Amino acid sequence: MRALTLAGRGMFSAHPNPRVGCVLARDGEIVGEGWHQKTGEAHAEINALADAGNAAEGSIAYVTLEPCSHHGKTPPCADALVQAGVKEVFVAMEDPNTLVSGDGLKALRAADIKVHTGLMQDAAIALNEGFVSRMSRGVPHVRLKIAASLDGATAMKTGESKWITGEESRRDVQRLRASSGAILTGVETVLQDDPSLTVRGEFTTDIVAQPLRVVLDSSLRTPTSAKMLELPGTTIIYCVDDRNREALEQAGATVKAVKGKDGRPDLDEILGNLAELGVNDVLVEAGPTLAGAFLMEKRVDELVIYQAPHIMGSETRGMVKTPSWLNLDQRFELEITEASIIGRDMVVTARPAK
Amino acid sequence: MRALTLAGRGMFSAHPNPRVGCVLARDGEIVGEGWHQKTGEAHAEINALADAGNAAEGSIAYVTLEPCSHHGKTPPCADALVQAGVKEVFVAMEDPNTLVSGDGLKALRAADIKVHTGLMQDAAIALNEGFVSRMSRGVPHVRLKIAASLDGATAMKTGESKWITGEESRRDVQRLRASSGAILTGVETVLQDDPSLTVRGEFTTDIVAQPLRVVLDSSLRTPTSAKMLELPGTTIIYCVDDRNREALEQAGATVKAVKGKDGRPDLDEILGNLAELGVNDVLVEAGPTLAGAFLMEKRVDELVIYQAPHIMGSETRGMVKTPSWLNLDQRFELEITEASIIGRDMVVTARPAK
Repeated sequence: MRALTLAGRGMFSAHPNPRVGCVLARDGEIVGEGWHQKTGEAHAEINALADAGNAAEGSIAYVTLEPCSHHGKTPPCADALVQAGVKEVFVAMEDPNTLVSGDGLKALRAADIKVHTGLMQDAAIALNEGFVSRMSRGVPHVRLKIAASLDGATAMKTGESKWITGEESRRDVQRLRASSGAILTGVETVLQDDPSLTVRGEFTTDIVAQPLRVVLDSSLRTPTSAKMLELPGTTIIYCVDDRNREALEQAGATVKAVKGKDGRPDLDEILGNLAELGVNDVLVEAGPTLAGAFLMEKRVDELVIYQAPHIMGSETRGMVKTPSWLNLDQRFELEITEASIIGRDMVVTARPAK
Repeated sequence: MRALTLAGRGMFSAHPNPRVGCVLARDGEIVGEGWHQKTGEAHAEINALADAGNAAEGSIAYVTLEPCSHHGKTPPCADALVQAGVKEVFVAMEDPNTLVSGDGLKALRAADIKVHTGLMQDAAIALNEGFVSRMSRGVPHVRLKIAASLDGATAMKTGESKWITGEESRRDVQRLRASSGAILTGVETVLQDDPSLTVRGEFTTDIVAQPLRVVLDSSLRTPTSAKMLELPGTTIIYCVDDRNREALEQAGATVKAVKGKDGRPDLDEILGNLAELGVNDVLVEAGPTLAGAFLMEKRVDELVIYQAPHIMGSETRGMVKTPSWLNLDQRFELEITEASIIGRDMVVTARPAK
């Protein structure tokens, strides 16, 4: 439990690495604590061993993720635990990377350390859903954020719209952004709203870098004057036809051509590419067309819907455009995992039904 | 508090009378309890006095509503409290009927009983919102129930629909029906779904009579074979043109002609008429057109929205038809009072923003 809390401190900074926490205890007393803050820096176990000093000898380690056994940017944690004389290790979850999964546990067992796995496993997985997704499926965890009225409208038919949800909801979106490796939108949103897609406000102090900004833009209509191109961090524009590439690259964008599908850059290829770039969590903040495409292609792992306390009525635009869903049995079935009031709005979190 | 709980026992049976509870206490001990079960039977105070017997003398009475001072179907409760020798009375709220409001308190004070008002007043009012509305505004409290998907759809554009919400939500609707004096719908719903609009299941044992069934049907297109006409209880059909009156009356309906407005029977006249019939609470279970009319005319006091865990997409019909709301500032602003998960659905309760 305490190790999970420590791991959670890395919520906004650990990615692309997993969020990991470690507690060392002896005779029922905590003698060392550590968590992984950011890539390139020490892992949770190393920090906990340093915190414990000599007291690590003969202690029990509680780690939220299987200790690594390979030399990456830092030496293997399994070896460090062995050398420090830890006598027993509780591991909440195994490494989701199937290539190395179990190696850390083996290394510990080979040194005659008692190893237990699965303690609070679900909570440990939930903390690193994006990392697990990237390691096991080769794509990031995709979270689709939608803001609408209680009757599902996002704008009037005339296009008239403004902030629909309240301040608290918008602040909560900043939290979602800060915990994501990339924020993804479509060129229509860029043309209409010229958004920044940056983390702002209180969470700026928690992040290591601005999330990657990702624009889906088949024929590169993004203006070189787009606000996001001037902001700190990287903007990747995925296109199908890259004829206008140069001007945008000069304006600071990274342009990548991918194959097209249904008139837009192929979502599978993009998600695969983002995973290769180390993105664990993608936050989709798009208009009805792109949001609809993610749903129609079943590429949404989690929906976060902010509902404003209004009935906007029938002369409006809906949350998503799903032209191919003509029958009721094509609807996207969900499981609601959380519902609460936030300011004057509601926020509903849901996942695809199993 | 205890008196409010007792009053709540009349939730499904007291109407058209208010839900009232009474507790008699002496030396900090409860010596008598009573509540009003149904019209024509004894009021809460009388039941509490009977329960206390001789112990009522010198006791303190806690009543959720000002004791009556007039001879109705039963003798005045204020007199009964005086005669029983009650020495002090706490009244949560005054009688909302402005014609008699305060008379009961005066009668008690005239007998040298100490009277206090306002203790837990808000809760007492909430318990009798419909009664208060009818007494003070001359119209019932109007609750609009809507069942839709998370993105606000109620059917496919083709008309395809089926149970959208789950069993627990539908059971909760039975609770709403059981606490209402009337259930109101439009002729389109009658023609399409041939609904029963009755209280079914566990709540049938709690009600005294089936709620009034109300159909808005300008030109009397309700078929004489409509299921609801054969069921226990009364069906009132409000029309503008009553040429087909006779056949429907023979089939068991009560037909009332009212003035027309925007192509439908005038809502104000109907609500006024329902109040005269003793209806405290109206539950509107209608299609998008009539639900939209109630919203456009600002005749909704409370919205209860059941949201099913689906995204149905853009090729669908919305919750409400509001053809005259063309601008964003015409939207209906709400205050969300409750949001919770019910089975696999969500239920959101909201009221017009002040």
